[in-house]
Amino acid sequence: MSVLIVGTTALDSIKTPAKENPRLLGGSASHAAVAASFFSPVQLVGGVGEDFPSKYLALYRKHGIDLAGLQILPGKTFHWSGEYEVNMNNRRTLATELGVIETFTPKLPAAYQNAAFVLLGNIAPALQHSVLDQLKRPKFVVADSMDLWLNIALPSLLKLLKRIDGFVLNDSEAALLTQEDNIFVALKKIHRLGPKYVIIKKGSHGSILSAPKGIFICPAYPLHTVEDPTGAGDSFVGGMMGYLATAKGTIDAKIRRAMVYGSVTASFCCEGFGLTATTRTQRAAIEKRVKELETMTRF
Amino acid sequence: MSVLIVGTTALDSIKTPAKENPRLLGGSASHAAVAASFFSPVQLVGGVGEDFPSKYLALYRKHGIDLAGLQILPGKTFHWSGEYEVNMNNRRTLATELGVIETFTPKLPAAYQNAAFVLLGNIAPALQHSVLDQLKRPKFVVADSMDLWLNIALPSLLKLLKRIDGFVLNDSEAALLTQEDNIFVALKKIHRLGPKYVIIKKGSHGSILSAPKGIFICPAYPLHTVEDPTGAGDSFVGGMMGYLATAKGTIDAKIRRAMVYGSVTASFCCEGFGLTATTRTQRAAIEKRVKELETMTRF
Repeated sequence: MSVLIVGTTALDSIKTPAKENPRLLGGSASHAAVAASFFSPVQLVGGVGEDFPSKYLALYRKHGIDLAGLQILPGKTFHWSGEYEVNMNNRRTLATELGVIETFTPKLPAAYQNAAFVLLGNIAPALQHSVLDQLKRPKFVVADSMDLWLNIALPSLLKLLKRIDGFVLNDSEAALLTQEDNIFVALKKIHRLGPKYVIIKKGSHGSILSAPKGIFICPAYPLHTVEDPTGAGDSFVGGMMGYLATAKGTIDAKIRRAMVYGSVTASFCCEGFGLTATTRTQRAAIEKRVKELETMTRF
Repeated sequence: MSVLIVGTTALDSIKTPAKENPRLLGGSASHAAVAASFFSPVQLVGGVGEDFPSKYLALYRKHGIDLAGLQILPGKTFHWSGEYEVNMNNRRTLATELGVIETFTPKLPAAYQNAAFVLLGNIAPALQHSVLDQLKRPKFVVADSMDLWLNIALPSLLKLLKRIDGFVLNDSEAALLTQEDNIFVALKKIHRLGPKYVIIKKGSHGSILSAPKGIFICPAYPLHTVEDPTGAGDSFVGGMMGYLATAKGTIDAKIRRAMVYGSVTASFCCEGFGLTATTRTQRAAIEKRVKELETMTRF
């Protein structure tokens, strides 16, 4: 089955202590879609400007991503630029030029409206709602978000939490949302807001799932070099949803393994700027790292 | 087989945002010894002053800890006082009164000199050397340390690393020792300094072992409340060494499981001030949490 993914489709200018790379393909939907494409067909929903490089359309197509839901709009593509500190854990935004994303409204082609697996990638909650409104009978909907929406669109986000199955956020966002530093107390509080599956991402420390079958402690793949962590969280949730959409069995039976596949896909993302390393990856390389993680967590 | 444990035997005055508790039994050797006692007999090496409360001697004895190597010296017991911040991750030392620890020299009773499993808990590297000098043929020696010794006794610590099998330190200490933020690069650098087994502790994020059989990602037990994390690292390594000393099989075959036992013992430590919660624990409660961690990490 395919995964429908909405989110930002952007150009990212990324600066790390080692390198600087302007106008790379980025955005939550781009990272999630490429990650998901290793496991299942992907239907992309997003909006780019007339300046969007055709080589990036080619990159989406190389991954078999369905672009019927990608609108090319008059104006400029959303552009984000940011800088990482030496330890790669802290980043600051240098500039955000919204461009076409400011007035973008997702419009689902008829073929997308029957989507079963839906990833509402990080984008304004109003747009995530708008996608849900256009869907007929989604089977499993997961949303991602960011601190920005917690700060400026909390009521809309809280309404969204009542409409989705799974919610993914990072540890600092969880603390911001729940006013609770303890991750396991925060998980309980987030369940009370709606979602049955809650995943808190902890970067290089892995992630934690709280679900009907209990807590799952999901490992991060050990990396010796992190070139650029931008999009790692999106790759994680994209890979997870791609795996969920095609693997057999119930959500409960396969979500843990799906997270590990997402985690491994995210590890490749970190090894290159933007999507450089992710797009070079093969399914076989992902399988190899998943097996390694099985060995590294067994006791 | 028993474990020989050297380290500080102290009185800790601990302040958290919620509570304040003066003059609790603490110190690296106390925490490690009680933790190890759930799995194996323990031989304690340490020094306390004449003011050391008899109730704490009784606590050691309750755990079957052999006190032949505990010297009661003229003067006062080492006293540490510290304060934790709201999120319990940062602590600052309010006062350190060395007392008898300033001139303490470990003296191993004859019965201790044949020890096979040895934990050189956190104490001055010179004293850790002195214990090693008195041992006949130790089988497996693990050392713990702290930032203080990295800063003021680095040459002695570096010499120690060449004499031991395993070294345990936390992530910030690993970065300080290797000048390397990436934990997996740091592990490789520490191996080059001597130890075959290196464990980097990451608090609530668990720990990482690098060993001949590769990397092991060891989980932390999910806690909803952390009353006082003082001694958690010592409990971890103490529990690990206790398990290693009695479980069957080679070190390589059992060190991962030993770390999980250590991790669980440390989780109990965090649930009470000082040794309050650890000392109330039973082996059965530890086994239960180890089983839960097996379930929480399986995918």
